[in-house]
Amino acid sequence: MRESLVRAGVAFLTEKGFASTGLDEILKSVNVPKGSFYHYFESKESFGIELIKSYASYFADLLDSNYLDPGLPPLQRIAAFMEEAKTNMARYEFRRGCLVGNLGQEMAVIPDSFRQLLIETLHDWQSRTAACLKLAQAENQISSNLDCDVVAASFWIGWEGAVLRAKLERSGAPIETYGAHFLNSIQR
Amino acid sequence: MRESLVRAGVAFLTEKGFASTGLDEILKSVNVPKGSFYHYFESKESFGIELIKSYASYFADLLDSNYLDPGLPPLQRIAAFMEEAKTNMARYEFRRGCLVGNLGQEMAVIPDSFRQLLIETLHDWQSRTAACLKLAQAENQISSNLDCDVVAASFWIGWEGAVLRAKLERSGAPIETYGAHFLNSIQR
Repeated sequence: MRESLVRAGVAFLTEKGFASTGLDEILKSVNVPKGSFYHYFESKESFGIELIKSYASYFADLLDSNYLDPGLPPLQRIAAFMEEAKTNMARYEFRRGCLVGNLGQEMAVIPDSFRQLLIETLHDWQSRTAACLKLAQAENQISSNLDCDVVAASFWIGWEGAVLRAKLERSGAPIETYGAHFLNSIQR
Repeated sequence: MRESLVRAGVAFLTEKGFASTGLDEILKSVNVPKGSFYHYFESKESFGIELIKSYASYFADLLDSNYLDPGLPPLQRIAAFMEEAKTNMARYEFRRGCLVGNLGQEMAVIPDSFRQLLIETLHDWQSRTAACLKLAQAENQISSNLDCDVVAASFWIGWEGAVLRAKLERSGAPIETYGAHFLNSIQR
């Protein structure tokens, strides 16, 4: 029951964000009474923390399944991650974005405890991307002049914009445009 | 009175977005009774449309004041725009983001009439940026191989991510990182 609450919570937050999502509609969607909810979670805030952590770890796995794929050259692994992310968005007709980006946009209305966790999550994804870029550098796919940590930081800063725009346009085209320009800009 | 309503509305939407902003708090902040509001606007939705248009035109002016500055080479005009946008965010301690990005993130909960207008606004900013990039190309600041329309599209897709991240980190650093990588990636 705990797990289905988390799954439903993540779905609501990726689609509507934190402020517009009521606890009641999450509970209703999985037929869980309020009393049971408070058996598992102390408050909407601690539930939110759990949802961020769950999404962070789900997404880190998705990154690793691409970035650590020995069957592809490193730069193509990044391209494959972007393709998979786009496909996942298409499955929900581009209604669901990135939970971290959604909450990041809601800074004014989310609990302050979320903030540090969101930043840490982005840094975690960033460092996985930097590691893959360093492999690409070692294989001479990208210039040795590039600072892979800075490039990975810039990639993630812009990536959340691409996901946002894909939601707005209900299309994968913004992800393709952003991804192609990013890869072109670092490729040898 | 109409003008101060629009000004207050824009401030609320850049900070909190549409769903979390109540009409009442906007009216209260400028001491306007509800009856007067409905004298000027038909509904919260038509007020929202007006706010998007007002912000779009304010921001187009801000872009032009940099992109059309004859005192700077074209690429430096884009750098100057980014610097000004960062300074404007710093003035409000990075609490206020981009109205268009905020609403774009709220696709699930905003009226559908906003959607096309937000896309058109981004395309307008994009085409102003493309024009400046074409000047940079004519002056040989960037490679003649680059498609300025595509580069401008990619810039704006990622830019909304940079603004979002600046809000999250309460810092101008994400805008600097994104801007520096963008300029490096196209500069000759």
